[in-house]
Amino acid sequence: MKRREFLTGAGVAGAGVAMAAPAIAQSAPTIAWKLTSSFPTTLDTIWSGAQTFADAVRDMTNGRFTIELYPAGEIVPPLEVLDAVKSGKADCAQTALFYHWGVQPALVFATGVPFGMNAREQNAFFRHGGGTDLVNELLVEQELFALPAGNTGCQMGGWFRNELRSVADMRGLKFRVSGLAGKMLTRLGVIPTGASRAQIAGAFESGALDAAGWVSPIDDEKLSLVRVAPWYYYPGWWQGSMAIHLAFNLAKWNALPKTYQTVVRAAAELANADVLARYDALNPQAVRRLVEAGAKLRAFPQDVMEACWQASVAEFREAGAADPAFQRVYDAYMSFRNEQYVWWQVAEYPYDNFIIRQRAKG
Amino acid sequence: MKRREFLTGAGVAGAGVAMAAPAIAQSAPTIAWKLTSSFPTTLDTIWSGAQTFADAVRDMTNGRFTIELYPAGEIVPPLEVLDAVKSGKADCAQTALFYHWGVQPALVFATGVPFGMNAREQNAFFRHGGGTDLVNELLVEQELFALPAGNTGCQMGGWFRNELRSVADMRGLKFRVSGLAGKMLTRLGVIPTGASRAQIAGAFESGALDAAGWVSPIDDEKLSLVRVAPWYYYPGWWQGSMAIHLAFNLAKWNALPKTYQTVVRAAAELANADVLARYDALNPQAVRRLVEAGAKLRAFPQDVMEACWQASVAEFREAGAADPAFQRVYDAYMSFRNEQYVWWQVAEYPYDNFIIRQRAKG
Repeated sequence: MKRREFLTGAGVAGAGVAMAAPAIAQSAPTIAWKLTSSFPTTLDTIWSGAQTFADAVRDMTNGRFTIELYPAGEIVPPLEVLDAVKSGKADCAQTALFYHWGVQPALVFATGVPFGMNAREQNAFFRHGGGTDLVNELLVEQELFALPAGNTGCQMGGWFRNELRSVADMRGLKFRVSGLAGKMLTRLGVIPTGASRAQIAGAFESGALDAAGWVSPIDDEKLSLVRVAPWYYYPGWWQGSMAIHLAFNLAKWNALPKTYQTVVRAAAELANADVLARYDALNPQAVRRLVEAGAKLRAFPQDVMEACWQASVAEFREAGAADPAFQRVYDAYMSFRNEQYVWWQVAEYPYDNFIIRQRAKG
Repeated sequence: MKRREFLTGAGVAGAGVAMAAPAIAQSAPTIAWKLTSSFPTTLDTIWSGAQTFADAVRDMTNGRFTIELYPAGEIVPPLEVLDAVKSGKADCAQTALFYHWGVQPALVFATGVPFGMNAREQNAFFRHGGGTDLVNELLVEQELFALPAGNTGCQMGGWFRNELRSVADMRGLKFRVSGLAGKMLTRLGVIPTGASRAQIAGAFESGALDAAGWVSPIDDEKLSLVRVAPWYYYPGWWQGSMAIHLAFNLAKWNALPKTYQTVVRAAAELANADVLARYDALNPQAVRRLVEAGAKLRAFPQDVMEACWQASVAEFREAGAADPAFQRVYDAYMSFRNEQYVWWQVAEYPYDNFIIRQRAKG
């Protein structure tokens, strides 16, 4: 254990502090960690979560516990960050756990699933619905431990070259959408198509893409897709919210003194709250600017939403039949979501509904 | 400054730690604070926020910074907690700042106002809409500093003896409702009536009360009002959410080392997230149990909601004309609320709407 090294200084202490100094050194060792992110700094709102986290850990430990941040690609490619944490190339990762559903399909529930919980419900699930424990049961085999540390809230459905008049228009659509949502959209005849951030605009121009999901207005704005794909659809039903996690090497997490574990938990919660608040504060102006720039803001047609719902039901059934862990987490997640909406439709939803209608009246 | 005392141990240190130990002692002094709450332990979900906060501060400082908790009434009565913090009877308070609107009317915006922001919007306002700074500008004259540390979310409208068929039924209603909402309800002929928690059920029996607002299902359940006032209305429009704050003595806050200030901020955010998540996790089952016990769960009639909206507009206008600070905070708050709903009605609201309708179909 490296922790022995931190006691060296105390070893030569005089009698007056012989009891106090080792206690402080044991509980407040000097630690320098590396964080590898799945996100580039251009996704600056998500990226700010890593900064909020690292700054808080440093400040709460008086500079004794530092975390150096590496954006996507600097240590490893975005989808390899968990491997980097396991192998020791990094000590922790900022990621969306559903990127890693190839390893463990049930990890999709850690981030967000089609017609899943909204951000607030997801946080209730993590904290008081057993959600964080379920996620960590999935990760223990990977020798990882994760904490929620950011959320985008509900996202946009994305940019479409042409108007979607009905579900029939989904057939044959070359759509930049990945993961579980991409898989279930094939049931509607969609052709899920990969494209990196830098490739998206060009792919629209060459005809390789007909539609592309990204994040929400404040991030989408930077892609400048209004010119090539002006139809801008909502809501992004493929996840009710998108939770970001910090994943830690389990052995290193377990070796942290309890003081530092609590510091890390609190710093992660600060990031969790702050990323969502930033998205909420920034998106209204961004959506206005996009509409002024020519975006045709539209709700997905009802029959598209319903067909996607049916596809999600079928996909969940298939995934659950193939994987007992998926079924177990699905059951816990959907049961909690269903309970959440019992209360949501009594209080939050009618409240928001009234305000939105009153404001529409002017 | 008491901080000198913490250096005593270091004074006799041998050369090896002469530089390190005082640095630790200065940045990590031993502090024992008292927290006085406006809330009783029977409001256990709100109260849990004080516990979450104190536990996190203790654990993050390895037990060097402790905060002893005193529920409402133990040090001072619930509405005198800010005075106690100013006078030094306590070091910090857990309270709803709108209880103190007599001192400073604009403090209502720190907690929640009629037709104000929902919990998530309020958090965005605090963190990235200048909200926490505005609150602290109001508190600086009181030599206080406050941080958000809990939220109930949207509450219930309360328990009514009789069915509300229209706004005409509000006239003459002896309604347990206080603060700004009570004042504006007098415009509809309501008679705002005081009653302590222990008095509510008896007041219904004696005819002294016709209606009573409390909190939300998980707290309301303990009052057992189904028998005397079975009509249970939603939503609690008198605040879109109810933010709880921790208020600190400003001089003591300023004297904390930066390390401890960050610890306190992070611990407050942990409490902020955790209280809301608890309400969200607990309310669905509680509302079910209440309906099973006989509560007649109803939405406020549309004309009641609209009359309350009009009353709120008139009340805000009057309060703003009487107090420039109120007008200034009102303008900032409502401008942020209006922007929030621009985005909310694009993403979150249509998303929740779809899920609620699909679930209703079965």
